[in-house]
Amino acid sequence: MAEALFTLASTGTPGLRFDGDDPRLAAAAWSRIAEPGDPVAGALVGHLGVVEALAWLVDAARDPSQVPVADLAGVRPASAERLAQAVARWAPRLGSLDPRRELRVLERCEGTLLVPGDERWPDGLAGLGAAAPFALWVRGNADLSTWARRSVALVGARASTAYGERVAANLACGLVDRGFAVVSGGAYGIDAAAHSGALAAEGVTCAVMAGGVDRFYPQGNDDLLRQVLATGTVLSEVPPGSAPFRQRFLARNRLIAALTGATVVVEAAHRSGALSTARHAVQLHRPVGAVPGPVTSMASAGCHALLRDGAAVCVTGAEDVAELAGAMGDDAAAAERSAPVGPRDGLDPDERMLWDALPVRSGATTDSVAASAGLAPRRVMTLLGSFERRGLARRDGARWVRGS
Amino acid sequence: MAEALFTLASTGTPGLRFDGDDPRLAAAAWSRIAEPGDPVAGALVGHLGVVEALAWLVDAARDPSQVPVADLAGVRPASAERLAQAVARWAPRLGSLDPRRELRVLERCEGTLLVPGDERWPDGLAGLGAAAPFALWVRGNADLSTWARRSVALVGARASTAYGERVAANLACGLVDRGFAVVSGGAYGIDAAAHSGALAAEGVTCAVMAGGVDRFYPQGNDDLLRQVLATGTVLSEVPPGSAPFRQRFLARNRLIAALTGATVVVEAAHRSGALSTARHAVQLHRPVGAVPGPVTSMASAGCHALLRDGAAVCVTGAEDVAELAGAMGDDAAAAERSAPVGPRDGLDPDERMLWDALPVRSGATTDSVAASAGLAPRRVMTLLGSFERRGLARRDGARWVRGS
Repeated sequence: MAEALFTLASTGTPGLRFDGDDPRLAAAAWSRIAEPGDPVAGALVGHLGVVEALAWLVDAARDPSQVPVADLAGVRPASAERLAQAVARWAPRLGSLDPRRELRVLERCEGTLLVPGDERWPDGLAGLGAAAPFALWVRGNADLSTWARRSVALVGARASTAYGERVAANLACGLVDRGFAVVSGGAYGIDAAAHSGALAAEGVTCAVMAGGVDRFYPQGNDDLLRQVLATGTVLSEVPPGSAPFRQRFLARNRLIAALTGATVVVEAAHRSGALSTARHAVQLHRPVGAVPGPVTSMASAGCHALLRDGAAVCVTGAEDVAELAGAMGDDAAAAERSAPVGPRDGLDPDERMLWDALPVRSGATTDSVAASAGLAPRRVMTLLGSFERRGLARRDGARWVRGS
Repeated sequence: MAEALFTLASTGTPGLRFDGDDPRLAAAAWSRIAEPGDPVAGALVGHLGVVEALAWLVDAARDPSQVPVADLAGVRPASAERLAQAVARWAPRLGSLDPRRELRVLERCEGTLLVPGDERWPDGLAGLGAAAPFALWVRGNADLSTWARRSVALVGARASTAYGERVAANLACGLVDRGFAVVSGGAYGIDAAAHSGALAAEGVTCAVMAGGVDRFYPQGNDDLLRQVLATGTVLSEVPPGSAPFRQRFLARNRLIAALTGATVVVEAAHRSGALSTARHAVQLHRPVGAVPGPVTSMASAGCHALLRDGAAVCVTGAEDVAELAGAMGDDAAAAERSAPVGPRDGLDPDERMLWDALPVRSGATTDSVAASAGLAPRRVMTLLGSFERRGLARRDGARWVRGS
């Protein structure tokens, strides 16, 4: 392919040129042009194809007042007006568009560009429909179609508590032990604890970035994210050089939800961004879990709201989460809870009444025990025989006392 | 009435005598003869009337091998065999039966006997059907039909944490502020904290005892229960002198659930008795709340299990609980943000689904309604309870139809 493929000359006014047919380059271009989750871009690319949509845009951008919409009747949800508005917001980015340069940056990071249709493209993203990403800029383990199939998103507040961080790390550990990859957002607080927990258990963990993968954000997590990269994955849907705008964090959350089999919110205050990940998961019909915490902790208030609204189920350990996300073979068996069994456990109601009615010291007659227990004397005699064999009752002449 | 009314001469062999027609005495007698919640006793009394059932029993006890069941075809769930078994377990208690003496003990405690049909008998107990108590032995404020109408059960583990006790006390305070009576079991831990919180807020609180009200159990709560008595209520369905057997605690829990508008479990380990109160509330179609706590706290594990199973909704403060329990009187009025047009206005999405799924004429089972509405059966049970109170649904045996 010619180097001129994406030579787009823009002087701010009409004068763009586009010729080319490489869908990977076109997808990379769209991941720069449209903000993540832009549904009009998704619909346009879905309708025309990624290369043709770019050609159409270059054409349309020459004169945004004369957008050619006649052949786009099938593009939803893009009315003529919305298409014109979209062209107006996309056109400014055409001038500096240079996907080749961004791919070179990715290459220097030993990264991989994945586009829809690639073997390693994760199935889960299909759920996003027109809001699916055009491309994934991936560093580290790019085999997303494999690890994402058995993965959980552990997300939560940056302003976490020691409790929340401990729970996040433990959950991550337990999930790795059960063969799950742990996906999070690479942020301070719960995200960092989740990644760390997965790394400690030598599992696969993935940080989904809101900005480009060439620079790690936040800087304070640079070391952690380098460790994630060593065995796991750091990815983004925006090209290298993209800044982590707030809107991109919110859009990034839909990606975390769509990539994984379940989303678990470990700690979140009432308006925490982690709740948006949960909302995306709900919209995608993916299971959502919330970890409860003290009702006195504001850092758990968002989790409790999710539980209260029925948007999430209560999860308290990796076993619960695996059950939520997995439903694959061995998980179900492990889900059986065991509770400690005491010496008097397993008594049926009659036996229980008898046990309570049996005196501890001075013995009582069968009749007196029957009256006290509210049981028929005959039944009491039978039960006392059984109690005696089990060491639960002792005879004292014609009288009975508790055996232990 | 003659002193001879309940002169029952028993020598262990036939020779009983019964003559009398005071239903209050007969109810008091039944509350001694049958263990709480004995469904056969409830069915028998329901079928024959409380006085006649006692006469029948005295007669039947003369020769348990010849129980006259011919006229009891309508008694459910009592087959002839089950009736004979029941007579065998009731008969041993006839010998020492002396309800007059027990009433004198109650009088000395300045207590009141309530029986079904009394003006002050609480409506909520009707939900128990054949397992309803025969009588309530009440000390303190006996106006149950008034305070129980706006009441909440706050229950939980004896082995509570400082966190749970603080939350229980705060919830009780906040509920009193909102005009609710706080009902609990008078035990150590969460129960005590709930009673104390209500007392601190100068509200009505009620301790439902597993044993007789003449002696407070546990002894260590003697001071607290005396304070409860001063402004609130201590009651039991078993007569003075009855020991607090374990089985009676479990039966007592159904009373706590039936008396109140909602049951909230504050802290409970996996096998805590407080969970049985929650299960009773579910069966009674009463709303159930659970307070979350740290997942690292075993004292919250039972609450989390309730949340996980969908048996309880997550409550974090008195406001949540009031919303759960309210829907009566002024709460309903306050809940209406806009002018009501019909009975179906102001329904939330789940309620709306349920309303639409409820048949107008021939009733449907809970499961069938749940399938139709696309809601979990447990959720449907809770909602149906609320619908019933609001007149939106009616029971037709085990089936439900629209109420209006």
